Amino acid sequence: MTPSSSSRPSEINDFAAVAPDNTKSRVTVIGSGNWGSVAAKLIASNVLKLHSFHDEVRMWVFEEILPTGEKLSEVINKTSENVKYLAGIKLGKNVIADPDLEHAVQGANMLVFVTPHQFMEDICKRLVGKVRKDAQAISLIKGMEVRVEGPHMISTLITKQLGVNCCVLMGANIANEIAVEMFSEATVGYRENKEIAHKWVQLFNTPYFMISIVQDVEGVELCGTLKNVVALAAGFVDGLEMGNNTKAAIMRIGLREMKAFSKSLYPSVKDSTFLESCGVADVITTCFGGRNRKCAEAFAKNGGKRSFDELEAEMLQGQKLQVCHLLLAIEHI
Amino acid sequence: MTPSSSSRPSEINDFAAVAPDNTKSRVTVIGSGNWGSVAAKLIASNVLKLHSFHDEVRMWVFEEILPTGEKLSEVINKTSENVKYLAGIKLGKNVIADPDLEHAVQGANMLVFVTPHQFMEDICKRLVGKVRKDAQAISLIKGMEVRVEGPHMISTLITKQLGVNCCVLMGANIANEIAVEMFSEATVGYRENKEIAHKWVQLFNTPYFMISIVQDVEGVELCGTLKNVVALAAGFVDGLEMGNNTKAAIMRIGLREMKAFSKSLYPSVKDSTFLESCGVADVITTCFGGRNRKCAEAFAKNGGKRSFDELEAEMLQGQKLQVCHLLLAIEHI
Repeated sequence: MTPSSSSRPSEINDFAAVAPDNTKSRVTVIGSGNWGSVAAKLIASNVLKLHSFHDEVRMWVFEEILPTGEKLSEVINKTSENVKYLAGIKLGKNVIADPDLEHAVQGANMLVFVTPHQFMEDICKRLVGKVRKDAQAISLIKGMEVRVEGPHMISTLITKQLGVNCCVLMGANIANEIAVEMFSEATVGYRENKEIAHKWVQLFNTPYFMISIVQDVEGVELCGTLKNVVALAAGFVDGLEMGNNTKAAIMRIGLREMKAFSKSLYPSVKDSTFLESCGVADVITTCFGGRNRKCAEAFAKNGGKRSFDELEAEMLQGQKLQVCHLLLAIEHI
Repeated sequence: MTPSSSSRPSEINDFAAVAPDNTKSRVTVIGSGNWGSVAAKLIASNVLKLHSFHDEVRMWVFEEILPTGEKLSEVINKTSENVKYLAGIKLGKNVIADPDLEHAVQGANMLVFVTPHQFMEDICKRLVGKVRKDAQAISLIKGMEVRVEGPHMISTLITKQLGVNCCVLMGANIANEIAVEMFSEATVGYRENKEIAHKWVQLFNTPYFMISIVQDVEGVELCGTLKNVVALAAGFVDGLEMGNNTKAAIMRIGLREMKAFSKSLYPSVKDSTFLESCGVADVITTCFGGRNRKCAEAFAKNGGKRSFDELEAEMLQGQKLQVCHLLLAIEHI
């Protein structure tokens, strides 16, 4: 495997040169937005204490030129700070930003996917044949691909395209709060191999980020996606000023429908998953604070006269609404 | 049974005189605070449409002299409005306020208990031997008696003292919102007789107040009590500014502990009850809007330097905090 080194800073060494002990696990975080940077910080603090992991955590950065003219990846490597997406937070000196996707995953056997979901298909295509055959993946990506033949989970996309097992991590996780070490919970969903789930717990769990594991990849992943639909309903309730009882009712019914919908897609989905952080807790944070709720509230307040596209552009400073297809459908009702 | 008619307004007829058809069910609401008045309004709108019920709904009023010098019960009967506890809302002309407890229940076979829980022991004592032997009861009272020998449910108190079967109705029910007919859900818990549960649904269900039934009196009733403990934790999190993730976590863990605690007290309690309106939905309204949350937030903000008694007096305008015993324990930690 020859990494395309053209865009790769010369100070980034190959893993093999840094740590010749190939029995140690190596982690790469694919994505460096707000949540990706926090994930890298969590993992970076843990690997330093774990003998079975290399100290270095590589983080793939979609390269951007900052207003100062500097490259984002270079600033991260110089300051240990993602000045664009997580300003003011030290990620740890052992986080190495790498703008070269193929090089970033080279030698890594623990791959953490945390990019906007719409980029995942392209990223997976670029990684085909480039990741270790014994690699394990985890997806922190909320959302799914909706195709003619049915919905497609991100974890399934990763497994199908790259031939690697893929866990998921979801929960009531506002990234900026975890970045400043406020207490939070999260849920790891695994398929069969409980040992791998425990390995992800070792990487993510801290005294302020408490992970539980459930054998239910689809249930956990669908929670992370479907809560965004419930948040739209919660936003409409807010915009129409329907009150606290109605909002609690819509959240409760929403959680029940998330369960029914998930189980009809995947009969293996467990009821108990919806009482984990990825379920009820994430519904709570998303229905009170999330961006879907905010835009849906504005949509209802304007009597549907302003489009979601317009509100998104105005209110979200470049971030995107989740569940776009559904929004288009609502506008045309 | 001779009702003590001294305090009873002369315009209130005996049930028998109003409606000689004794095959019809007669409803009495025991309590006329905020929630009691709304309950009377809901029932009053339904009995008019139901042939198996008498049109008249009697409501026992703890008599008060208003600043105008008038008696509260008389003003309610003149205006169909509880000017003190639910101003601006018409209860229905078929709601008859009665300050005489014994007379209010005379002839009634459907008894709705909705008073502050600390008054229930006394009320039950006064009603011993005074209610119909075939009467059915429902409790809308949140809270429990904590005695040396263990906690005592209000529904159990009613059944033991009065010898009548007792259902419960709990849910995410801010009374003022239901009063203005904003959509809400609630849960009726019944013991064995499903037909009785359906009869309560007939009395309470409206297009804006949607009732579901579960065969789990203890589960539903404990939800209504224990959510007040979780709301204290949520208030502390708010007061300490611990963030949204922590608040969602404390609510989720709180719900799980409500379940564990309830099942250890009553092994018959069902998991699914906690996903009904009485469970997760009521936890949401109480942890975002309730009086316990509000005072707990102030308690934490003041670093525990001001007592709950003081904060209650200042913030709740005469209402009481729920779960007082627990609060005393916290102050002394």
